[in-house]
Amino acid sequence: MRQLFHDELEQIASDLVALSELVAAAISDSTRALLDADVQLADRVIEGDKAVDARRNDLDARSVDLLARQAPVASDLRTVVASMRMSSDLERMGDLARHVAQVARMRYPEHALPDELRETFADMGRIAEDLVRRVGEVIRSQDLTQARDIENVDDALDAHHREMFTRLAEGAWQHGTTSAVDVALLSRYYERFGDHAVTVARRVGFLVTGDAGSIELPEESERA
Amino acid sequence: MRQLFHDELEQIASDLVALSELVAAAISDSTRALLDADVQLADRVIEGDKAVDARRNDLDARSVDLLARQAPVASDLRTVVASMRMSSDLERMGDLARHVAQVARMRYPEHALPDELRETFADMGRIAEDLVRRVGEVIRSQDLTQARDIENVDDALDAHHREMFTRLAEGAWQHGTTSAVDVALLSRYYERFGDHAVTVARRVGFLVTGDAGSIELPEESERA
Repeated sequence: MRQLFHDELEQIASDLVALSELVAAAISDSTRALLDADVQLADRVIEGDKAVDARRNDLDARSVDLLARQAPVASDLRTVVASMRMSSDLERMGDLARHVAQVARMRYPEHALPDELRETFADMGRIAEDLVRRVGEVIRSQDLTQARDIENVDDALDAHHREMFTRLAEGAWQHGTTSAVDVALLSRYYERFGDHAVTVARRVGFLVTGDAGSIELPEESERA
Repeated sequence: MRQLFHDELEQIASDLVALSELVAAAISDSTRALLDADVQLADRVIEGDKAVDARRNDLDARSVDLLARQAPVASDLRTVVASMRMSSDLERMGDLARHVAQVARMRYPEHALPDELRETFADMGRIAEDLVRRVGEVIRSQDLTQARDIENVDDALDAHHREMFTRLAEGAWQHGTTSAVDVALLSRYYERFGDHAVTVARRVGFLVTGDAGSIELPEESERA
């Protein structure tokens, strides 16, 4: 019974890793759709988000089923509850990738980004993909050092986010209102994506150490 | 034992209602802080969000404790899991109220909103407060008709949100970039607030009917 339970827990962890891989592909593709004004790719991300949602629902149903059948306590219970929260974070990261794709789609055949910001958003996309790949690795390894690294990597995303709002300041911005609104929202999507990655890392930390510390979302930047 | 369990479930429901009341005050105060450029009130909302987070953490700890001690199954288990998700939605609604207050704070002593948009945002604030008060009532009553009404009320918020993005369109907007970015983000905060209210209503519906239907977040508007 106990062995079965641990097999099932491991299956849930490996499904979380698979979910993180779907989300990594989604943020990579949506960034490319944004940079290349590739509407077919944007559509694929938007459509593909349904698969992320379906996997998350399936994972959660199995977690609830596991609670009902096995009535875990102590650290086993914490693990199941944390898994349900991690699936929610990953699902939300998938939504944010979809939002990026939706901006690309809405501006097509135009590019949503002014040329001078392409490199920054390319880098935000790379960092976001790196973050979610690290999240998958931390779920697999339960390695606290790797979990802490995620917070440092996220700092680079936050720095880009702040830089974007400096560029959007009155007088500095030369690309019109629609573009300003797009850039503000896009920058926020990537920043929130990173926040959820940090939250998952903290949840793993909580499971390993039993120290709740802060398992809330990291404080968002005040600007957005 | 069983009676004790149901007493504890009722206590959790009544704490969720109390949490919804804190969030209703937060969105009401943050809207007023925004409309009046009232920085003291904005600071109170920002500071007060810690109390929302603390209550949510306490509620969740008690829910996990209840799972461990009572090992509920079937609808009782579903109720505890749904309560944890509702506390997460309410906590996030509190965050969004805080974000509104942070915009008011950042623009002080200026007003963040152009005069012509004040009435619309006042209405968005009223609708948002109404929504979260209805959410509290639905958690208390488990009344499906009231739960469905929440979706209709949220439609009014979505309509305002769409209207804002029409006003932000190129050529129509006369208030500069900073203001455009503020308005876009503020409008999104209210829209997301409403989305979470709808999600809580759907979770209650799921508990009452056992039909999952969609208990995901309602589809966000494509624009933001």
